[in-house]
Amino acid sequence: MKNIILVGSGNVATHLGIALQKCNYLIAQVYSREIENAKKLALKLNTDFTNDLTQLKSADLIIVSVNDDAILKVLSQIKDTAIVHTSGSVDIDVFKGDFSNCGVFYPLQTFNKEIDLTISEIPFCIEGNSLRFEKQLTAIAKTLSNNVVIMDSEQRKQLHIAAVFACNFSNQMFSIADELLAEKNIDFGILLPLIKQTISKLDKNKPKAVQTGPAKRKDTSVIQEHTNLIQSKEIKELYQKISSHIIKTHE
Amino acid sequence: MKNIILVGSGNVATHLGIALQKCNYLIAQVYSREIENAKKLALKLNTDFTNDLTQLKSADLIIVSVNDDAILKVLSQIKDTAIVHTSGSVDIDVFKGDFSNCGVFYPLQTFNKEIDLTISEIPFCIEGNSLRFEKQLTAIAKTLSNNVVIMDSEQRKQLHIAAVFACNFSNQMFSIADELLAEKNIDFGILLPLIKQTISKLDKNKPKAVQTGPAKRKDTSVIQEHTNLIQSKEIKELYQKISSHIIKTHE
Repeated sequence: MKNIILVGSGNVATHLGIALQKCNYLIAQVYSREIENAKKLALKLNTDFTNDLTQLKSADLIIVSVNDDAILKVLSQIKDTAIVHTSGSVDIDVFKGDFSNCGVFYPLQTFNKEIDLTISEIPFCIEGNSLRFEKQLTAIAKTLSNNVVIMDSEQRKQLHIAAVFACNFSNQMFSIADELLAEKNIDFGILLPLIKQTISKLDKNKPKAVQTGPAKRKDTSVIQEHTNLIQSKEIKELYQKISSHIIKTHE
Repeated sequence: MKNIILVGSGNVATHLGIALQKCNYLIAQVYSREIENAKKLALKLNTDFTNDLTQLKSADLIIVSVNDDAILKVLSQIKDTAIVHTSGSVDIDVFKGDFSNCGVFYPLQTFNKEIDLTISEIPFCIEGNSLRFEKQLTAIAKTLSNNVVIMDSEQRKQLHIAAVFACNFSNQMFSIADELLAEKNIDFGILLPLIKQTISKLDKNKPKAVQTGPAKRKDTSVIQEHTNLIQSKEIKELYQKISSHIIKTHE
């Protein structure tokens, strides 16, 4: 499985393409619906590109990294080749019976095209429609990463939800903090040591065990004062709901 | 200002006491309402202890690190000495006119007694009732930390609310993730690279600029699927509220 086609040109396709090439895989072609996007990534990888799925070359493996909504449509235009998608939330059943070798190759990360990351530390969650194909996918993932896990679709979906909380929603908490600080001309950087300390505790402790703050202490007077001080209706409501949830889970 | 009394024996008092002693300040006495707690910290610091505020020794500075609710009661029993509290949410006005030199010495951190931390990286927020006292407090803070900021009570309260979001609430997001993973027998450790990547982006970027995920992408079908899959009513509601807030702030 050395010859790989990337279907998609977004963050995941870009990072995977670069990483696979570094590990001596051959990226034979890049497809994107928008020819300019296909070209841009193909130039980075020094390979061919197309915006026509009927023009895909033959390859050992097709990696489909498009929006979840687009996966089904893309698959309907690809003829039987070993194939994976890279989505956390799409079931392996999306391939129906149309592909002899199909599976999931899900890198658990938050990709931004511009930001470099150490792919070797990224967990890859692998699922294959046969033990043989699953092993082949695992072998590829292991050349990229030290952290490869076999996981079925149900587990992967739950992992994706958990990742939304742990990554997207925690980042939204940072955004809200930034917004609150900006109101009083305080730089967000002042919070970074606190944030890093919070994270470093997780290496050895469960998050629940290291919870701190007014809700954890059930300090209702501070909670009330904070609620009074917050101007935005939505942020006030989030403060109350999350505080209530902390109180409830630490009863 | 070399001779310091600690009023309180909790996380903040413990860490401050140890750090001050390392910087050659003399901890003259530890007070706690519970004599056993006073004794425990006094033993660590090799100093005297009491549970009677009328028995405080004379000192250059009293540091009050008790629960916010208890500060006022404690102050009513202390005679005029240079004094600070260490709370993010309590106004400097709590000292009323009863103290000639009073202020706030707020370390912006999440302290656990058991977990070591690098105090030199902790931001200290200083406020004094006079420029002269503020300078003295700043000098003490600078012996402990490289990150000392003068901040009035209004700013400090807002900073505290921001810290609740950035630290306590993000940690609750990690707790929820852990709970969801446990349901499917997945270890929380799989999320750590993702969490660390999320945080490392904040060194050079605003959190809003690096938001990712289904809500950022306005991917309503994933949001709907996640909402359907989440069993707990409270967690489902938090998923919806925070997703809505992400969508709204990225319009």
